[in-house]
Amino acid sequence: MQSLSVALGQRSYPIHIGAGILGRADLYAPYLTGSVAIVTNNVVAPLYLERTRKALAAARICEVVIEDGEQAKSWSTLDRIFDAFLEARLGRDALVIALGGGVVGDLAGFAAATYQRGLSFIQAPTTLLAQVDSSVGGKTAINHARGKNMIGAFHQPRAVIADIATLDTLPDRELRAGLAEVIKHGVALDAAFLDWLERNLDRLLARERDALAYAVRRSCELKAAIVAADERETGVRAVLNFGHTFGHAIETATGFGPWLHGEAVAAGMVMAAGLSARAGLLAPADAARLEALIRRAGLPIRAPRLAPELWRSLIAVDKKNAAGRVRFVLLHGLGRAKLESSVDARLVDETIAAAAQ
Amino acid sequence: MQSLSVALGQRSYPIHIGAGILGRADLYAPYLTGSVAIVTNNVVAPLYLERTRKALAAARICEVVIEDGEQAKSWSTLDRIFDAFLEARLGRDALVIALGGGVVGDLAGFAAATYQRGLSFIQAPTTLLAQVDSSVGGKTAINHARGKNMIGAFHQPRAVIADIATLDTLPDRELRAGLAEVIKHGVALDAAFLDWLERNLDRLLARERDALAYAVRRSCELKAAIVAADERETGVRAVLNFGHTFGHAIETATGFGPWLHGEAVAAGMVMAAGLSARAGLLAPADAARLEALIRRAGLPIRAPRLAPELWRSLIAVDKKNAAGRVRFVLLHGLGRAKLESSVDARLVDETIAAAAQ
Repeated sequence: MQSLSVALGQRSYPIHIGAGILGRADLYAPYLTGSVAIVTNNVVAPLYLERTRKALAAARICEVVIEDGEQAKSWSTLDRIFDAFLEARLGRDALVIALGGGVVGDLAGFAAATYQRGLSFIQAPTTLLAQVDSSVGGKTAINHARGKNMIGAFHQPRAVIADIATLDTLPDRELRAGLAEVIKHGVALDAAFLDWLERNLDRLLARERDALAYAVRRSCELKAAIVAADERETGVRAVLNFGHTFGHAIETATGFGPWLHGEAVAAGMVMAAGLSARAGLLAPADAARLEALIRRAGLPIRAPRLAPELWRSLIAVDKKNAAGRVRFVLLHGLGRAKLESSVDARLVDETIAAAAQ
Repeated sequence: MQSLSVALGQRSYPIHIGAGILGRADLYAPYLTGSVAIVTNNVVAPLYLERTRKALAAARICEVVIEDGEQAKSWSTLDRIFDAFLEARLGRDALVIALGGGVVGDLAGFAAATYQRGLSFIQAPTTLLAQVDSSVGGKTAINHARGKNMIGAFHQPRAVIADIATLDTLPDRELRAGLAEVIKHGVALDAAFLDWLERNLDRLLARERDALAYAVRRSCELKAAIVAADERETGVRAVLNFGHTFGHAIETATGFGPWLHGEAVAAGMVMAAGLSARAGLLAPADAARLEALIRRAGLPIRAPRLAPELWRSLIAVDKKNAAGRVRFVLLHGLGRAKLESSVDARLVDETIAAAAQ
């Protein structure tokens, strides 16, 4: 097992990465102060709920099993979680454990953020996407019909327990979706890591554990440093959103579900790299290099066909926007993403026009 | 105008108290960084919306008018606010102004806490209850069918603008409901202020401005000191909940609305004082003195008739509970409230039995 730390003063927390650590009682013990609620979904529950439950010495455990899939990131599912918490009479001293992928983490985290104005929670991510990205950094949210992750809170977990062994049961499509966020960390922040990914992609797709463990660890290191510098995304943290402006638009336009988040981000990264190249910030050869890697990972490199007006209206509600201006994260070379406030609308239109071709 | 400060480090903020200050542009100007959303209700809007709007130099103002009353503190109203924010394409740089009483403040504050994971907001309270209590301290929430304020967040405003002149239009019943929280501050924290209230109650009921201004200021001073010491209610802040365990149960049992919050707190304080006396902590004469003051203020001193099982189940989900134990705020003499973890269940039952008689 390896452990990193997200340095946030009093709210600092460890990220534990290793195979088979989900059942380690000592990783939960420091945070058990009262009842426990495990929030998971109907796919993960048969695989890992029992193992997690056994690691908890808590007298009272409330289990909440939600539906699998992005559609669950809704108010109605959140309200079902609140019902279960109230039924179990969870108090403020309860600990919430999010056992599952990004949807479970975002939902359970937001439930923990808002139930009785805030409970402690632990992220126990069981998908690659959640292990490399969504379980770290304290972003929690539900979707709104008009926009992805529109309603949410910054609420840091007390710990992240990333059990690499859970990736054994991950469907191929979800493994690939997780790789999109791994690639994002390389392309946005660390060209050397991007090189490593190009050399080791086949090992990752073959689920070699040491390769997966390194990809998770390096992703968490990169993300933890950014989060420590800018917890609430008033500045540099926005670069972690590379590919997400277009990606969120795809997810919202298609109704949350047909496209996995990582798939939408993959197509979104190709668009964002294209926009960077159009703006003269990125060499076209580097944009092509990113596209080739995404393609090799078995991820979509083209967006679905959406009306330009729909693209524009979805982009207009992006959370990075400020002062009435649309903002994009663009690449100034591989590994160097920056938030840009003044992007020529014509270049955005060209990028949209090219997206589905 | 008088100004106090709530001392919370970087998140410190001023409370401005004065007659006619709602329209002072200089009080809003420091916080205008983008669009503005004014959230108010259908009773307050005709009276004060225009005046507030004129004080804002913001280019774009989004107005959201909700229904009056505690029933509006629901997810469905919150979602209407989110719809309006998205329709207006509010970004993270927007400022939310809560113009109204406690319901508007709690709802608009929670919307500000969770829309795009958090916007700045200003409390512009127009009821006595909101000016002396709910607008200060950053508690925001909506109700759940199973419990008052069950879903919410700690989200401090950037400023509180308490315009005493708005109390001129407050219905008598709401003025009295606000006095319940004023009395709470005296009885829980400051016996000298309780003495002052006994001497000046008639002046308050006659809406003499200097008396109201003093009651608001002293309440805010007392509350600000407690909030500064314990922002997230891990300890001493719980004493501000005096009367609220029973009061919230009354509100939840009656379906949020028939009893104003302050009325429920009034009857709840009589019960909590009775429980304190039964526990041997408070002289019966002091409990009687509190009851007499509440009666003089035209507030209820008896709870509605509820089944003992209902009382117990509602008390069991109170947010102050911990480690499976019901906790009560009790009086160790007037002005000296403390959170108690081990209250004899028999005394609670006696208090419930006596409550509606």
